[in-house]
Amino acid sequence: MAETKFVYHFAEGDATMRNLLGGKGANLAEMTNIGIPVPDGFVVTTEACTDYYKSGAKISGKIETEIKKALSELESKTKKKLGCAKNPLLVSIRSGSRASMPGMMDTVLNLGLNDETAAGLAKLTGNPRFANDCYRRFIMMFANVVVELEKHKFEHIFGEIKEKKGIENDSDLSAEDLAEVITEFKAFYKKGTGTDFPQDPQEQLMKSIAAVFRSWNNPRAVTYRRLNDIPGDWGTAVNVQMMVFGNMGDTSGTGVCFTRDPSIGTNKLYGEYLMNAQGEDVVAGVRTPLKIDALEKQNPKVFKQFVDIYKKLEKHYKDMQDIEFTIEDGTLYILQTRVGKRTAAAALKIAVDLFNEKMISQEEALLKIDPKQLDALLHPQFVPAELEKAKAIAEGLPASPGAACGHAVFTAERAVEFKAAGKKTILVRLETCPDDIEGMNVTEGILTARGGMTSHAAVVARGMGKCCVAGCGALRISEEGRYFEVGGKRYNEGDFISLDGSSGKVYGEVIKTQEAKLTGDFSTIMGWADKYRRLGIRTNAETETDIKKAIEFGAEGVGLARTEHMFFGAGRIEPMREMIVSNTKEEREKALAKLLPIQRDDFYAIFKAMKGLPVTIRFLDPPLHEFVPTSQEDIAALAKDMGMAVENLRATISSLHEFNPMLGHRGLRLAITYPEIAVMQTRAVIEAAIKVKKDLKVDIVPEIMIPLVAEVKEYNYIKKYVVETADEIIAKSGVNLKYMVGTMIEIPRACITADAIAKEAEFFSFGTNDLTQMTFGFSRDDTGKFLPDYYSKKIFDSDPFVRMDLEGVGFLVKMACDKGKSVRKDLKLGICGEHGGDPSTIEFCHKIGLTYVSCSPFRVPIARLAAAQAAIREKKGGCASENR
Amino acid sequence: MAETKFVYHFAEGDATMRNLLGGKGANLAEMTNIGIPVPDGFVVTTEACTDYYKSGAKISGKIETEIKKALSELESKTKKKLGCAKNPLLVSIRSGSRASMPGMMDTVLNLGLNDETAAGLAKLTGNPRFANDCYRRFIMMFANVVVELEKHKFEHIFGEIKEKKGIENDSDLSAEDLAEVITEFKAFYKKGTGTDFPQDPQEQLMKSIAAVFRSWNNPRAVTYRRLNDIPGDWGTAVNVQMMVFGNMGDTSGTGVCFTRDPSIGTNKLYGEYLMNAQGEDVVAGVRTPLKIDALEKQNPKVFKQFVDIYKKLEKHYKDMQDIEFTIEDGTLYILQTRVGKRTAAAALKIAVDLFNEKMISQEEALLKIDPKQLDALLHPQFVPAELEKAKAIAEGLPASPGAACGHAVFTAERAVEFKAAGKKTILVRLETCPDDIEGMNVTEGILTARGGMTSHAAVVARGMGKCCVAGCGALRISEEGRYFEVGGKRYNEGDFISLDGSSGKVYGEVIKTQEAKLTGDFSTIMGWADKYRRLGIRTNAETETDIKKAIEFGAEGVGLARTEHMFFGAGRIEPMREMIVSNTKEEREKALAKLLPIQRDDFYAIFKAMKGLPVTIRFLDPPLHEFVPTSQEDIAALAKDMGMAVENLRATISSLHEFNPMLGHRGLRLAITYPEIAVMQTRAVIEAAIKVKKDLKVDIVPEIMIPLVAEVKEYNYIKKYVVETADEIIAKSGVNLKYMVGTMIEIPRACITADAIAKEAEFFSFGTNDLTQMTFGFSRDDTGKFLPDYYSKKIFDSDPFVRMDLEGVGFLVKMACDKGKSVRKDLKLGICGEHGGDPSTIEFCHKIGLTYVSCSPFRVPIARLAAAQAAIREKKGGCASENR
Repeated sequence: MAETKFVYHFAEGDATMRNLLGGKGANLAEMTNIGIPVPDGFVVTTEACTDYYKSGAKISGKIETEIKKALSELESKTKKKLGCAKNPLLVSIRSGSRASMPGMMDTVLNLGLNDETAAGLAKLTGNPRFANDCYRRFIMMFANVVVELEKHKFEHIFGEIKEKKGIENDSDLSAEDLAEVITEFKAFYKKGTGTDFPQDPQEQLMKSIAAVFRSWNNPRAVTYRRLNDIPGDWGTAVNVQMMVFGNMGDTSGTGVCFTRDPSIGTNKLYGEYLMNAQGEDVVAGVRTPLKIDALEKQNPKVFKQFVDIYKKLEKHYKDMQDIEFTIEDGTLYILQTRVGKRTAAAALKIAVDLFNEKMISQEEALLKIDPKQLDALLHPQFVPAELEKAKAIAEGLPASPGAACGHAVFTAERAVEFKAAGKKTILVRLETCPDDIEGMNVTEGILTARGGMTSHAAVVARGMGKCCVAGCGALRISEEGRYFEVGGKRYNEGDFISLDGSSGKVYGEVIKTQEAKLTGDFSTIMGWADKYRRLGIRTNAETETDIKKAIEFGAEGVGLARTEHMFFGAGRIEPMREMIVSNTKEEREKALAKLLPIQRDDFYAIFKAMKGLPVTIRFLDPPLHEFVPTSQEDIAALAKDMGMAVENLRATISSLHEFNPMLGHRGLRLAITYPEIAVMQTRAVIEAAIKVKKDLKVDIVPEIMIPLVAEVKEYNYIKKYVVETADEIIAKSGVNLKYMVGTMIEIPRACITADAIAKEAEFFSFGTNDLTQMTFGFSRDDTGKFLPDYYSKKIFDSDPFVRMDLEGVGFLVKMACDKGKSVRKDLKLGICGEHGGDPSTIEFCHKIGLTYVSCSPFRVPIARLAAAQAAIREKKGGCASENR
Repeated sequence: MAETKFVYHFAEGDATMRNLLGGKGANLAEMTNIGIPVPDGFVVTTEACTDYYKSGAKISGKIETEIKKALSELESKTKKKLGCAKNPLLVSIRSGSRASMPGMMDTVLNLGLNDETAAGLAKLTGNPRFANDCYRRFIMMFANVVVELEKHKFEHIFGEIKEKKGIENDSDLSAEDLAEVITEFKAFYKKGTGTDFPQDPQEQLMKSIAAVFRSWNNPRAVTYRRLNDIPGDWGTAVNVQMMVFGNMGDTSGTGVCFTRDPSIGTNKLYGEYLMNAQGEDVVAGVRTPLKIDALEKQNPKVFKQFVDIYKKLEKHYKDMQDIEFTIEDGTLYILQTRVGKRTAAAALKIAVDLFNEKMISQEEALLKIDPKQLDALLHPQFVPAELEKAKAIAEGLPASPGAACGHAVFTAERAVEFKAAGKKTILVRLETCPDDIEGMNVTEGILTARGGMTSHAAVVARGMGKCCVAGCGALRISEEGRYFEVGGKRYNEGDFISLDGSSGKVYGEVIKTQEAKLTGDFSTIMGWADKYRRLGIRTNAETETDIKKAIEFGAEGVGLARTEHMFFGAGRIEPMREMIVSNTKEEREKALAKLLPIQRDDFYAIFKAMKGLPVTIRFLDPPLHEFVPTSQEDIAALAKDMGMAVENLRATISSLHEFNPMLGHRGLRLAITYPEIAVMQTRAVIEAAIKVKKDLKVDIVPEIMIPLVAEVKEYNYIKKYVVETADEIIAKSGVNLKYMVGTMIEIPRACITADAIAKEAEFFSFGTNDLTQMTFGFSRDDTGKFLPDYYSKKIFDSDPFVRMDLEGVGFLVKMACDKGKSVRKDLKLGICGEHGGDPSTIEFCHKIGLTYVSCSPFRVPIARLAAAQAAIREKKGGCASENR
């Protein structure tokens, strides 16, 4: 094997080398090679970064040698020399990783300046003010980035000198004033570090490169990666590039442009520039930049050259570009081009337009849209101008996207009352429970102090497409007192608050929202997606509203109807509770007989709404204690209904207590103890299906799903009851009804013994929430306490309950698929865990050959697009991570 | 493939065909072939039983044909004919499975009798009384076994006739009396079934065979199998054998003999017989049987013949035999021989004697002892005579073997006070918690109402070698009231109760116990075991007492020292609690500094006791809330100590609450949040090891074990702290100390990613309790509620927390071993879960190449023997199940 090469000149690379050179480096190389005027330079690779960390945060001798060689070659090409007073080479040092992480890592500009070269630069340009301006900027950046002195302290010194001189604008400082700034900066540097500001440009260079490597792991970069699913071991490349100067006078300037409008997608150049400025001035907002159109008048030659370049770049990269340029004394340089960030709406429009302009194919258009972005189109958002003025009072987990504003209420009952009075609410709870379902249904948004991204509140809110901020630990909530406190302030019932479920932010004020609007581009893209995807898309839903929403969004079936959701609500919970506290089979069957017509009607409504599309019905899953009353009054009322002594009822309820309910008496374990529950549910499903068939002539093949199997004999025990009951009803009815019986695979042992299970089960649906819990030994309700440490300590890159852990959980899922299919070729395979709506998980599901993914209604469009992307990538032989 | 043969004549089989013919059938075949006088017959195989169940509880046509063919061949050989009045063939129908299940399944004798053949038999033998006696017995057995009429109802009829006739002894009934009995029996049969007693012997035969198949799954057989680890899918064979009669007069008789004394093992014929009787009479105890020696005088010829036969059989089978014989009119028949059941002491003596008599090798001797039996030798037992008189008041789970008697007490404190007053106690609790440890230490036995075989009470009691009955749900315990009630009776503090931890029985009275005594045979066998085993044997222990006991029993190291056990007790729990409720790292380190010298002294004591043997120390494992005070006073006291407001402390404590503590913030997750805990523990281990090395010149290589890894980065994060701390202390000490760092594999994901983990960990120790919990999704504290249903519904054969589930958990363990060794050849592999002391699990551990098993001290001898057996069986190419 050839020795690893750690440094590449721009001319040696190209756009395909993104993993090695980082996005910025690969694009600089590509541009260099297609003849775009790019200041010359070289890239220290991402592998050098990895090596840096492996070597205990040191740049190895070999890499240092390569850097010095590349530098000396750069000096030859540019005919300038680092540290040479007569003709000094100045360079910029910038990070650049595989995935764009804007502003997350560090940059050093004007490197190479010292007392001598600054004087030399002054002489060479005849512009001592410019030279000193560059030098003082360099000292501050170096001090901040390399030795971590605080930037604002330098700014403070700078401000003091301006005040002393009575000067307001930076540009009014003279060369001498700036020389004074430099002297003060150097003195502060020495005070802060105990050493002089380094005059050796080689030392400046190596230290700055190391500092950029280090900045890969600064806290904001770590957080950004976690939020954007970027692995922590990729590392960043470092770009060393000859400086060009936009601040050399009025024939110089600098700017940033998008080749199309990034907020609405219109095909029109969009950007701004400043003459006599360096890049940071544009961003800093000290002077107001001009719209890019103004350049046409100011310098038509350069403008025309820029238009040619941007069109060339857009065509070359087949996408909207975000371009940085500098004009040095009338000469145009392109400093960077990258795929431009855009809003969801713009993303759709640009993709459709690029196809219509024949620049890209439909497949390429589909790959250009980040599925997660679609969320923003499907949910209400704050009016941007309103949001800008607002200040968050707390931040929780962005548990369900969208924005909402309403009166704070602290119980589900109050939410219902406010609704009846025509008032919008935000439901604020320590945590929600199934009892809160009606309140959750009528409120605008849900805010909880406890629980994570997969807590009850989060899961239900996502299902409803309702905004939710969960686990907002800073709130001190008093549900009885009907208030919460945060930051020393109290918010009472009725006070207006606003939530942003996409950012997790909570506001103590009214912020107007705007409804989601779907454009024609949306349907176009969805239509294309359906053409290319292989995976089926179903939804997790059981209410008519949710099912209608899901069908509108393109769901092709119900992948998970949770029957227990049907047991809450008035008229339902009472017989359910009677069933639970029954002491004999007879009592239990009496209570079940009351539940039967209710469930049958529910299933009838679902089958009717689905019009023959497949429906998977999961039998009773949660532990029984989730249904029993907890308040004194409810217990007394139930005791009265049941004709039981309160004491006895209380004893029965407390006997339901479990140490670890997640690992307790639930799922099919309940039905093994009480087969009559499974019998009742089978009866309800089959009778409803027969009625739909008779009444509406709709053919339905109900899929009965038995949850929580660990051992095939458990499954068989229940299956026998299901099949006997179903067959008997069907035979009596005289209707020819088909049905399927299958199981949820959500326990490690079920994956391991999937071959035995598949012999008996007609379908598998992976419950990856529980599978993740058991594979990691993590309780999703308790990990909130320690997972933040896992992120900050770089043990986890992402939340395994949001993005499927492919190494562990994925291994088990794949094993189960392989074993299952080894004994039953036509085994239907689906996923109905929360992961079913996560694009990276969907790609995995596609790869291992699942039949469908099932997700909450509002994630259906995301899943359709992600499934199409997976299919297209597979055809191209690429992989998801390359495209981020 | 040849067609399956379902029926074998005795002459067609031999002893190796146990799986197919069952134990009884194989032995009858073997005896037939070595010339022992066995009444002729044939065996319907275990495969026919499996086929019976598969065919929906029907004997298939093919099998019926084979049976009829075999019957007709038997008729030819015996020159008798089933149903022929002139010379009737009568047969017995007996069960016989691979493993001995004495008395668990059904038997029908004298089959072939009907009104005609009974008359024929009377004529043929000239003994109408005998013929009628056989017939009435047959009717009752058939009715009971085949059509499930209750036996005692027949006995009632029989009793009434005796009363009417004024007769006391059965033998005084005349032929006419018996004819009356027969008439009544047949009438009752008709009344109970609606049909006449079947007169067709072929029908009798087929129905009886089916009934025996059915009896494989009667409740007592199912329970017996579960308790004895016998798989439910083995099925039973059925032996059809010509009847011979011990009740034909005074020259006939029947008896049962052990070839050696089954209670102490002495090499002397041991047994009893009755003349003019059938087998059931000997067992029923209506007449007192004679000692076998008496036969020598009564019938020296038959006796001599019997002695020759028993010696031949013992030599042939190389083991003590349990032989049933019948003398029919002076002719000796052997009806059954099987390996005789024996006490643990007898098992050891017989094994050693057989070797000394040159009948068997050491390996064979070792295989003859059931390792589980050794328990009885290591723990006190009730004096048998006393036990016989006692009556149990309740039955719980046999959680830790041995017997105990003492005053009932209901709190740990009272146990300590009784002990101080010189009184023995039984500690009775709803469930125990770590706080109870001192009370558990001083009490004789522990009785709990809740919790299973792996509950806190059970695990700690086994560790202490102390008797424990757990999960005795029938008790209504009031800990505050200091009493419990059962069966309508109240037992108060101070009342004497007795426990049998081997049977799970609870007695409300004094039963004298006798101490365990170890004989020379025990050391001989243990010495042989050590010669043959390959697995190392370690112990789970951390107190000096336990460690000394374990070394005495032959432990070669500590496989699991649970550091958290050291945090309970006065002077320890206080700083531990301070540590837990600390709000800052500084507060926490202050509390840890108090714990450091305590832990260091503990480790010093362990290292000293172990004299250089390896010691694996597991770092803090349980969730912190297990340590915090719960009572008002304790909380107030701690708040005072900490200078905290009670309210704040209460809030901190309640913030430690978890929904599923088993899947919560524990194990290395604690150390990730608070690395200072791992640092303190490392310091304690390393400083203690250095001190032992300096003080005692004992070389120790401490093995630091980091628990609960799911992802290698978690492990690495802690390992870094451990290694840095240890290396720094060692460097400063100037002592050359080696140590190892490894991990506990107890989470499915750790097994799946074991290769990545093994790159960083020097050893694995499998924590199969937790691994079982997560692989099945079972909380060991909650399964008690539904596992009984799993047994009765034949979903599980055995408790997966007692016997390792090889299909699921074993798969993961093996995968982890293979993956681990693929990257680190010399990876040390151990098991420290409760399964480490289970013989069948030990065999699995041997097969997959573990380095050692670790178990509680009292299980060490069991593990030594089981490990030797595994090695010997492997050499022989046999498997464990064959030998049961």
